[in-house]
Amino acid sequence: MNTKKAIILLSGGLDSATSLAIAKDLGYECYALSFDYGQRHDIELEAAREIAKCAEVKKHIVIKIDLTLWGGSALTSSEFDVPNAGESETDIPITYVPARNTIFLSFAVAWAETLKIKDIFIGVNSVDYSGYPDCRPQFINAFEKVATLGTKASDEGWKFKIHAPLQNLNKADIITTGIELGVDYSITHSCYNPNDKGLACGKCDSCELRKQGFKSAQVADPTIYI
Amino acid sequence: MNTKKAIILLSGGLDSATSLAIAKDLGYECYALSFDYGQRHDIELEAAREIAKCAEVKKHIVIKIDLTLWGGSALTSSEFDVPNAGESETDIPITYVPARNTIFLSFAVAWAETLKIKDIFIGVNSVDYSGYPDCRPQFINAFEKVATLGTKASDEGWKFKIHAPLQNLNKADIITTGIELGVDYSITHSCYNPNDKGLACGKCDSCELRKQGFKSAQVADPTIYI
Repeated sequence: MNTKKAIILLSGGLDSATSLAIAKDLGYECYALSFDYGQRHDIELEAAREIAKCAEVKKHIVIKIDLTLWGGSALTSSEFDVPNAGESETDIPITYVPARNTIFLSFAVAWAETLKIKDIFIGVNSVDYSGYPDCRPQFINAFEKVATLGTKASDEGWKFKIHAPLQNLNKADIITTGIELGVDYSITHSCYNPNDKGLACGKCDSCELRKQGFKSAQVADPTIYI
Repeated sequence: MNTKKAIILLSGGLDSATSLAIAKDLGYECYALSFDYGQRHDIELEAAREIAKCAEVKKHIVIKIDLTLWGGSALTSSEFDVPNAGESETDIPITYVPARNTIFLSFAVAWAETLKIKDIFIGVNSVDYSGYPDCRPQFINAFEKVATLGTKASDEGWKFKIHAPLQNLNKADIITTGIELGVDYSITHSCYNPNDKGLACGKCDSCELRKQGFKSAQVADPTIYI
């Protein structure tokens, strides 16, 4: 029997940790992919490494790319401050990193094609999320077509499948699902603006969604906030 | 009057140099983007720098990404040799780099979005080309949709345009166009397998297409082959 294999985009956050757990539960041998893209704090990547280790992924690659070259986001440029939850001045908040998921998925497709893997998991969500355009199902569906058309897949008669298992879940459901699958959320990191010690600020959009999620799920939040 | 701006993917080869010249001729202020992705020889990037300089682009960024992490191509892994023209054992030759143009375009979109630029030029061609899946119009069209859906463009009511001005030209027509626009092809580099001094092998698919192109265009080939 062939082993089912999948590439998992793993940021180190609550969502991608759950996405990885779901892929494992579905029987996939998991190849995790993370990015050192110039984000504000290494804590996110430390979390990704710990999650990958706990999930016993087959391989975990951290790719270095420099998105601070052009900035354009509070996460990749010191020009902007991370706003508190509810205080964003635009529909798409300044924490949005231009085309980040397009870039992440394109690397995932490259690795997947090399390993002849057709399944890619991404932890995007369009219920309790920050309103980023690259988290919406229309984008994911369009990218799936790009992946197939821009690789050997179309010539060899197979298609890429981009799995977004959290797409329609609220944060509480995501947490409940993860708990059932044994995810240790204490090692995940969601905060956009951690302090020097890596502690979550408790005020940004991502911290707020996380806190509310644990509350609604009636699960104790293991996060240490400043 | 607003200046028209465009991002130009610039590999250092004949095609992308012509694509840049066409964009300039159309009146775009050009922002060139190249990739240090672990390719066999730096000569390609030296060519890109020289072309960008001669074309007086507004800015030229070279991004470092490591596609040798997974290889899968003769251009990113020493595991494979570059075949001579006509000797490829597969429909899609081993010089194809998995999802390369998907990755390149995704960075172009990120930079474009940051600068509020909607036009991106890529020198793909589907007449005299090596048969790579990520050079076909279906792929380019699909990526255009991804670019718009995965960024602020869709929320702000505008669309990305991926220009592929060489798509339906043969190599001779590309060269004739470039000559008319003043491209100095002596500073471009096409070879997949240059020697230590950066001289073109004269035998690979890319060299063969280039040589035939100059011949058909009845233009002297300025390339020094080994």
